[in-house]
Amino acid sequence: MPDALAQLTSRAERIQALGAISSLLVWDQRTIMPPAGAANRAGHIAQLQLLEHEALIEPEVGRLLDELRPLEDSLDPDSDDAALIRVVRRDHGKAVRVPPELTAEMARAAAEAAPVWLEAKATSNFALFLPALERAVELRRRYIDCFDPIEEPYDILLDDFEPETRSADVTRIFAEIKAELVPMIAELRGREVDDSFLTADFALQPQIELGQEVIDLFGHRPETWRIDPTEHPFASGTGIDDIRITTHYYPDSLESLFSTMHEYGHGLYQHQIRREIAHLPTGQASSLGIHESQSRLWENLVGRSVPFWRFFYPRLQARFPDQFGGVDLDRFYAAINRVQPSLIRIRADEVTYGMHVILRFELEQDIVNGRVDLSDLPRVWNERMEEYLGVVVPDDANGVLQDVHWSAGLIGYFSTYLLGTVMSVQLWEKMGEDVPDLDERVERGEFDAIRDWLGEHVHASGRKYPPQETLRRAVGTTIDAKPYLAYLKRKYGAPVAA
Amino acid sequence: MPDALAQLTSRAERIQALGAISSLLVWDQRTIMPPAGAANRAGHIAQLQLLEHEALIEPEVGRLLDELRPLEDSLDPDSDDAALIRVVRRDHGKAVRVPPELTAEMARAAAEAAPVWLEAKATSNFALFLPALERAVELRRRYIDCFDPIEEPYDILLDDFEPETRSADVTRIFAEIKAELVPMIAELRGREVDDSFLTADFALQPQIELGQEVIDLFGHRPETWRIDPTEHPFASGTGIDDIRITTHYYPDSLESLFSTMHEYGHGLYQHQIRREIAHLPTGQASSLGIHESQSRLWENLVGRSVPFWRFFYPRLQARFPDQFGGVDLDRFYAAINRVQPSLIRIRADEVTYGMHVILRFELEQDIVNGRVDLSDLPRVWNERMEEYLGVVVPDDANGVLQDVHWSAGLIGYFSTYLLGTVMSVQLWEKMGEDVPDLDERVERGEFDAIRDWLGEHVHASGRKYPPQETLRRAVGTTIDAKPYLAYLKRKYGAPVAA
Repeated sequence: MPDALAQLTSRAERIQALGAISSLLVWDQRTIMPPAGAANRAGHIAQLQLLEHEALIEPEVGRLLDELRPLEDSLDPDSDDAALIRVVRRDHGKAVRVPPELTAEMARAAAEAAPVWLEAKATSNFALFLPALERAVELRRRYIDCFDPIEEPYDILLDDFEPETRSADVTRIFAEIKAELVPMIAELRGREVDDSFLTADFALQPQIELGQEVIDLFGHRPETWRIDPTEHPFASGTGIDDIRITTHYYPDSLESLFSTMHEYGHGLYQHQIRREIAHLPTGQASSLGIHESQSRLWENLVGRSVPFWRFFYPRLQARFPDQFGGVDLDRFYAAINRVQPSLIRIRADEVTYGMHVILRFELEQDIVNGRVDLSDLPRVWNERMEEYLGVVVPDDANGVLQDVHWSAGLIGYFSTYLLGTVMSVQLWEKMGEDVPDLDERVERGEFDAIRDWLGEHVHASGRKYPPQETLRRAVGTTIDAKPYLAYLKRKYGAPVAA
Repeated sequence: MPDALAQLTSRAERIQALGAISSLLVWDQRTIMPPAGAANRAGHIAQLQLLEHEALIEPEVGRLLDELRPLEDSLDPDSDDAALIRVVRRDHGKAVRVPPELTAEMARAAAEAAPVWLEAKATSNFALFLPALERAVELRRRYIDCFDPIEEPYDILLDDFEPETRSADVTRIFAEIKAELVPMIAELRGREVDDSFLTADFALQPQIELGQEVIDLFGHRPETWRIDPTEHPFASGTGIDDIRITTHYYPDSLESLFSTMHEYGHGLYQHQIRREIAHLPTGQASSLGIHESQSRLWENLVGRSVPFWRFFYPRLQARFPDQFGGVDLDRFYAAINRVQPSLIRIRADEVTYGMHVILRFELEQDIVNGRVDLSDLPRVWNERMEEYLGVVVPDDANGVLQDVHWSAGLIGYFSTYLLGTVMSVQLWEKMGEDVPDLDERVERGEFDAIRDWLGEHVHASGRKYPPQETLRRAVGTTIDAKPYLAYLKRKYGAPVAA
């Protein structure tokens, strides 16, 4: 290996390690850390982020990248080395634009806004949150100003989460979706579906065992995975052999079961990145959208499907005989797929979910471009909720204050939830072509073909390619809303039954 | 604050953070990490240690220390700032002596030796371990060669664990102890004490509750402490508000109860370091010896005392009525204080423990000075075990291979166990002068006076002073074996009864 490449690789390995170590600190804080340690922990995470930023903007990294330009041009662009140079070049190029003081201030603002948002949400008091939001937006604008001016400033934010994706492209796809979803929701919301039995007493221990059972089936290996309770579920880990998913057990619902399948999808992505690149910045997810395509695939295309429940429903009934002994599979399946416009994105069904995301995506662009007064956000939010979903927002805790993202300065993030959902259907259909007996396998409780297909076509390459190229290599085309819309119509067009 | 001091403080804060973060990674690995993550974790820990070393040897740190010399001379030596400059000067001065390549090689050797030692111990095969030991000793000699030559090279190693302590001083103290212990052991070993009831079936759940009960009593606060199972117990944490002790529950003994009290002592030390210095290198333990004085104090001077068991024995009996319902307090107390020469240091009673440590301390000096051939170590070990403790070593797993330290390159460490034990008695007696009703408090289950006294006189100052100065400030003199020997004679001179 040429010396400059070895040096860049060594520096890249350190950058990746610092990110992984930060993940562990965050995971620990959100699962098992003694709560009094929070302030100290925030300082440690900030130190690691600063070290990572410093390692990335080192002038020597820029020099090595310059020196490596001829090598990069001579390498097969698909090679691990070419991809590493490409990815570090991208990250370095973006990071050197941003003054460390701004990075530090954004981190500080996010840390200080977190308790303010919690308090504002708990008391449904938007005015309390407004100054923190104003500061977050102001800092995002200063961040945008670090880069060359472009027509749509929001693209700069979006690029951090969904590389090389333009908001114009997203808007086009979302318009296509919106045109179909709005009438579909209007039609489906009147359909009578009994899901009353999904709200019942569900004891903790059988819930834990059930979650364990489903991820064991999917392909969890205890020597490389953990599952722990937390407040707001997430997937994390420090490497391909240390995957940590989390869940929240509710005493009166099965929400944990579906969210565990969701986090399993995220975890499997990280687990199946190719070992040769796992310790490098190429060994990350391609984008948040691709990440979400994995979680939504396991949660919805597997976890809310007929074949899966034909296999798994007797197991659920065995764990909760009182709750489900008298409910047949058709009724259960209809209930878990009930379409019902609601206030909260993270609890939305497959059909209404998209409108929650579109609302935020549109609002974020209005915010960044100054088309909406921040103090006016609750009114605008509530109006659009009524327009898009036909629901009346009773208070801001259930409205504009429901998501944590803006408090953390995460503006530009939301669209990836729906982009991922759309891509999950493209991946699923392509997988169905390559694995013709997919449904039969799921119905037998066999998931290895799904894991292997996703591993080979999506996970292995990590972040070697940007998301649309990752998708194109897996399914032959870039993002396309039609399979997603066709899937929804197929599944929900007729009354739902297993 | 002068600019140079602010800069040094900021750098020192980062150094301390990196150490604390390493602790978390080690804690996680030894308690809850999915086991397949070990190789990846070793790489992350190595990255953090390298970053810490790099941060410490930065030329700018040396420059700041030079610039701060006049300020340091003008400050009250007891001030936090003077202590910080002093401690960083010491650490920087030592670290710059050692080439990073050697540091890296020592870390690599330790990582590679760990599984070799485990295998050698499991199969009682010293020949398997010998090459790793030879490498560790060779690296320690190269480490010694980084420093100015001194009369006793072993002092350089000792200084890393017990700053500013000379092996000549330790040898003098240990000679005094040895002269008393050897005849004492010879006399006590013949005494008949029934401890058969300490080996019984102890169910896991009551053991967990018992450990929790005892540290709750001592003063554990769940919002700042955790206790988790592990293979080899240790205390750790990432700061004064995040203390993590560990234990190992055995199904047939109460070992976990005493080791929990031991680790509580370590944890309390870290917990009560003054908040103002906790985020800095002054906010560490003064030395391993002082650390061990804290663990031994809680384990032995509290945990094996008459007053404690007068209070706690009914609670133990309530947890394990079948095992202890028919055993009165006198018999129980005699059993937990039975003197019985044995093979394994970590299970030794208060009287024989010292001889285990002295044996290793003497052997280590012979090793470093080339007075013993490494391949001959098992024979030398076994001879001295017979001479010092009168026990016959059946195999090397129970002999020279029993401790993990040498595999990790930790040579120079062992004497701190006995130094700490000696100091624990000095501290306890001084505390007894300041808190005259100490025994009565313990007998009432009240431990706040102990915690407060230790906090004020030992813990608060962290590493502002070297260990002997820390001790002198607490008890008025430096280390002295007489109180320890008098304590042993008082406790064990007559047949033991509560």
